[in-house]
Amino acid sequence: MRKGEGANKGGNLKEIVLHLLKQRIDQPVSGGELAAKLVVSRTAVWKAVNALRAEGYLITGTPRRGYQLSSHSDLILPGEIKAGLSTAVLGRRVEYRVKVTSTNTLARQLAEEGAEEGTVVLAEEQTAGRGRRGSTWFSPPRQGIWLSVLLRPQLSPLWAPYFTMAAALAALRAVQQAAGPEVPAGIKWPNDLLLRGRKVGGVLCEVAAEPDLLRYVVAGIGINVRQAEEDFPPALRAHSTSLFRETGRLCLRAPVIRQLLRELEDLYLRLKQGRQEEVRALYSSHCLTLGQEVEVRREGGAEPLSGRAEAIGSDGALLIRTAEGRSLPVYAGEVSLRRPGGGYA
Amino acid sequence: MRKGEGANKGGNLKEIVLHLLKQRIDQPVSGGELAAKLVVSRTAVWKAVNALRAEGYLITGTPRRGYQLSSHSDLILPGEIKAGLSTAVLGRRVEYRVKVTSTNTLARQLAEEGAEEGTVVLAEEQTAGRGRRGSTWFSPPRQGIWLSVLLRPQLSPLWAPYFTMAAALAALRAVQQAAGPEVPAGIKWPNDLLLRGRKVGGVLCEVAAEPDLLRYVVAGIGINVRQAEEDFPPALRAHSTSLFRETGRLCLRAPVIRQLLRELEDLYLRLKQGRQEEVRALYSSHCLTLGQEVEVRREGGAEPLSGRAEAIGSDGALLIRTAEGRSLPVYAGEVSLRRPGGGYA
Repeated sequence: MRKGEGANKGGNLKEIVLHLLKQRIDQPVSGGELAAKLVVSRTAVWKAVNALRAEGYLITGTPRRGYQLSSHSDLILPGEIKAGLSTAVLGRRVEYRVKVTSTNTLARQLAEEGAEEGTVVLAEEQTAGRGRRGSTWFSPPRQGIWLSVLLRPQLSPLWAPYFTMAAALAALRAVQQAAGPEVPAGIKWPNDLLLRGRKVGGVLCEVAAEPDLLRYVVAGIGINVRQAEEDFPPALRAHSTSLFRETGRLCLRAPVIRQLLRELEDLYLRLKQGRQEEVRALYSSHCLTLGQEVEVRREGGAEPLSGRAEAIGSDGALLIRTAEGRSLPVYAGEVSLRRPGGGYA
Repeated sequence: MRKGEGANKGGNLKEIVLHLLKQRIDQPVSGGELAAKLVVSRTAVWKAVNALRAEGYLITGTPRRGYQLSSHSDLILPGEIKAGLSTAVLGRRVEYRVKVTSTNTLARQLAEEGAEEGTVVLAEEQTAGRGRRGSTWFSPPRQGIWLSVLLRPQLSPLWAPYFTMAAALAALRAVQQAAGPEVPAGIKWPNDLLLRGRKVGGVLCEVAAEPDLLRYVVAGIGINVRQAEEDFPPALRAHSTSLFRETGRLCLRAPVIRQLLRELEDLYLRLKQGRQEEVRALYSSHCLTLGQEVEVRREGGAEPLSGRAEAIGSDGALLIRTAEGRSLPVYAGEVSLRRPGGGYA
């Protein structure tokens, strides 16, 4: 057996080096030790390390001490996501970027270029992350999950609100699992994820449609993972949180992303099977807005609407029962929950 | 005054040569005559002619006879459209192509690249022109108007059906004007234009949207202009027509396009001013489907629905009154009018 061949063929060597570096993450492993263990030359190890670096892994190399994989990166590279991913469609293709304007924008571009259903766009940082109604979504480097999924359902545009419901539910389940069952989590209609009443994430679904047919849906999901209080801009601190703030633990992003993709695929299949009522029922059961006294600030200077949020309509509207007993659908607008002592927050 | 300068400065010369060639369309004008009239060199005339050719004008040049502009081209170049166009927004930018897959596809690409509102895409030929529900739209070279308009309204996606109404109305008005008031014209819900009961055109509006906001609308319009009966594929002949077939006249496309853009701008401004009820009322008054006994074939194997088409709902649905007296909204589906002798066609 010649050096550089044998048990560890070319394509595999990189993965095995990565595996060994991960076993001693944040500690150095000498090139000689790796070469001996894998029965390859030191040059072959060096090449494998460089290939891993080219993929984005943070690996330092120090003379005499060896190679060291940094845990700081909390890796979300395509290979990390795909390893152990149990979906059939979502994540078949994963596009990873260090920095994007917004993952939704890149996903839309890929969609227009014909990207396949299930394409996932992941970024470490969004420079222009977006929420509803043109608001910005604070997306600092490596601090959260900024992700978009491309779907191509053969459904009517009337179904568009169900994709917001499905994305919010999938993200909520992944957040709940990461935070643990003791941390109260839920959805604020239509698209905010709350942990202990503060915003930990949100979804923004964008659609491209003909009158009878959705051409594609881009489901954008943002989840705050590692931010400490002081990492948020002052204006956001009171109402924003992260998994770290609520649990005191730094969780890795890749398993959260994998679960999120599994949950979203499950809900998406239900929509494609005409089981949208299940999705609406699940969404309703996790929607913290329902049953509350709310005030809705509407666009265009219309009077704010207040009443009791009763249900989610089959068209995605929030149904409000006013003091006069009328049921009014709300399709857009900023919803505040009534404070126990009076007033709205 | 030196030759090549003077009254006709560089930029102008091309337009003046074009003007003179148009005055004797399909007849030769000698280069010497043009040079003498414009007080420029023959070389300057030759350069202007070549610049016009580069823009797509069909100009033949024969030794001793001169230059001849062909009427065959029925020009729809950007300059032709913009000359005399009285709109403020629509047509600020005109993208002309000899051949595209579909003008809607190109318009969507331009929209994603940030093209400004009012951008118009025109093509001589579509190789994959589309109608509703994935059907193809036969779009042979130079025989019709294949056009898309990019709009960026700051409106909710709930308004999407109004853009189909506005585009159908604008196209109908342009067709009615070109055909003359004696030719009966109208709209078959939702997006077909009929002349004497046969399809002369159609519209396909595509939208890109967030849950609360239309990011853009691409209004695609196709109008059959010059086709004779034998120009249509056999399968389309019975139900398709063109302005030429119904009037016996070959009309020029540019004035029809200009009127269409004027009408669409007028209707678009009404939508932006919240006057959507006017658009719905106008659409309803030209909708030939209303008041008819119809049968609607629906997707997914559901039973066909029959009844009397009563109105257009505020959400764009066709409201059908069934024999049992129920009013049912139809959002998608193929509508047939009941034949006088029974059955549906």
